[in-house]
Amino acid sequence: MSSTASAATEVERTLGRYQQRIAEEIERRLPDGEPRRWLYGPLAEYPLRPGKALRAALCLASCDSFGRSDADALTVAAAIELAHCAFLIHDDIQDDSLVRRGGPTLHRHEGVPLALNAGNALALVSFDTLRAGCQSLGHRLSGQVFDEFCTAIWRTLEGQALELGWRRDGVVNLTAHDYLTMVLGKTCWYTTIAPLRIGALIGSRGRADLTAMSRFGLFLGAAFQITDDTLNVTGGEAVYGKEILGDLREGKRTLMIVHALSVAEPDDRQALADLLRGPASERTEERIAWAIRVFRRYGSIEFAREFARGVTAAAAVAFTEAFRTAPHPERADVIHDLVDYMIERVR
Amino acid sequence: MSSTASAATEVERTLGRYQQRIAEEIERRLPDGEPRRWLYGPLAEYPLRPGKALRAALCLASCDSFGRSDADALTVAAAIELAHCAFLIHDDIQDDSLVRRGGPTLHRHEGVPLALNAGNALALVSFDTLRAGCQSLGHRLSGQVFDEFCTAIWRTLEGQALELGWRRDGVVNLTAHDYLTMVLGKTCWYTTIAPLRIGALIGSRGRADLTAMSRFGLFLGAAFQITDDTLNVTGGEAVYGKEILGDLREGKRTLMIVHALSVAEPDDRQALADLLRGPASERTEERIAWAIRVFRRYGSIEFAREFARGVTAAAAVAFTEAFRTAPHPERADVIHDLVDYMIERVR
Repeated sequence: MSSTASAATEVERTLGRYQQRIAEEIERRLPDGEPRRWLYGPLAEYPLRPGKALRAALCLASCDSFGRSDADALTVAAAIELAHCAFLIHDDIQDDSLVRRGGPTLHRHEGVPLALNAGNALALVSFDTLRAGCQSLGHRLSGQVFDEFCTAIWRTLEGQALELGWRRDGVVNLTAHDYLTMVLGKTCWYTTIAPLRIGALIGSRGRADLTAMSRFGLFLGAAFQITDDTLNVTGGEAVYGKEILGDLREGKRTLMIVHALSVAEPDDRQALADLLRGPASERTEERIAWAIRVFRRYGSIEFAREFARGVTAAAAVAFTEAFRTAPHPERADVIHDLVDYMIERVR
Repeated sequence: MSSTASAATEVERTLGRYQQRIAEEIERRLPDGEPRRWLYGPLAEYPLRPGKALRAALCLASCDSFGRSDADALTVAAAIELAHCAFLIHDDIQDDSLVRRGGPTLHRHEGVPLALNAGNALALVSFDTLRAGCQSLGHRLSGQVFDEFCTAIWRTLEGQALELGWRRDGVVNLTAHDYLTMVLGKTCWYTTIAPLRIGALIGSRGRADLTAMSRFGLFLGAAFQITDDTLNVTGGEAVYGKEILGDLREGKRTLMIVHALSVAEPDDRQALADLLRGPASERTEERIAWAIRVFRRYGSIEFAREFARGVTAAAAVAFTEAFRTAPHPERADVIHDLVDYMIERVR
């Protein structure tokens, strides 16, 4: 095992401990009732499938590092993970994805109408959990946490709208900057920025300076998303937990696509644009394999990986600044280790 | 014009005044930003199309009657109407409805992915508006209002799950009691019960006894929904604002369907059950016309109307009890007039 691989394993072991604690908290928060078959059963499916618990780990370690026991942020961290699961249900409907967390997507299982409804219900569980988690924080701090949470959801919906709008309207003239704007919205806010900021707020009782935290979260989240995009092309489904090549089938504008479209010869560029603009049914295995060959020919996968490495280097610098005023910076070690893990992970 | 028709016109005139005030408040609360084309534009479509403002009127008049100026409840009432619009967007996706508030449904216009996202965003606007409306209510009362709001949304999601589950799994052995359970969930809680209760809470500064209010809201909401079902079969699209016969095309279990299934001769019953269980594409104009003839043959439309009249009579009794302790019962006159209007309305 290479030292990189063993470092990744170590990070996963640490994440595993967070994962266990957050899974217990989530189980406590999942409601039961009728109709179980059509609502309370389906809404619990994604939260009970094992996830990475990345968002919870960032929130808890950030709280810890800024001065309070991370138990103070546990319920709020569970609310963040539950919001994530609610997004996943709707996201899978929007993309018509097939596999999620190693199982069939909810709408493939339950049909779109009931899955949509279960996603709404899970968003409400997340909100109920957030309210419960804020109860002990006092009026002012609890208002700050709600503000952060709502901001993150707004930014996510905006990023999601960009991605969906580009696909619906066949937009292909995109730059890396456009891609980053979209990823800042659809991924970074709720995956890294908000968990880190909310953790720091709870840990510091609302006094932490969060400016540097947002920059760090942006770089960390971008590294996470770009790696997710490349894993979708190069990974193995059993470890990855999603449908390999699903992004291409769904016509997503990944950084690899943006790169290939901007550097390819006119013929390849036109064929790639046509492939993205056509209906999903035309993105057959054969044509997707062709697109991957185009990626390889123009170095688009390597470009994305290199880009992720650059963003990771920026994240490492921003990390120091973000935790400079934390009373226990050593308790943010797990977050520091996550920086490299973002591009080394295989799942 | 008959006296009934002129009473209905008078109620609509009163509702119109509430509608205008709530429309202004909603306009103030609708956010703007980018991407406008794919998010902020679409999310504003339903709220800006004229609705009945029934929920807002119930909330405001209830507040007024229980002792405070209804201006105290205006922003919260706007939040209720916005939540209603968010539900409508998702509901139209789930039912694949064609017409809403006199225009094409949002997903027919924008596609399912962007409409789903806009529905989520509108739910967040509703929540932001609720937070703003609660700011002046103090910690305890604001907590009560949030509890009521969340309860209503839970009950709505449960009722919606029942309706969608019955359709997906071809459930046809339903009683009027099953139907009422579903309607209590999908309609009454957020259309009548919660607006009335929240208005009374704000008006009484949290001191009103709400037990009788829930019973009144249940009867009022059931009368509203059953009338909605019959209008869908007998109304005119231009006034009604939705697709006439849409319920039948969508395979909804209305009270007329429940009645026809329970009294029809075996052959008709079987044919009706098959029609409901098949895909929507098989519910052609011709077969829907046949179903209407079955309704007429077995008196199912008249049964539903008679049922609505019975529920309305119960609502009239419950009204008196619900507003018995209100300091200004005369300010609830508009609510009293709404009782009869529920079954007299044509839109």
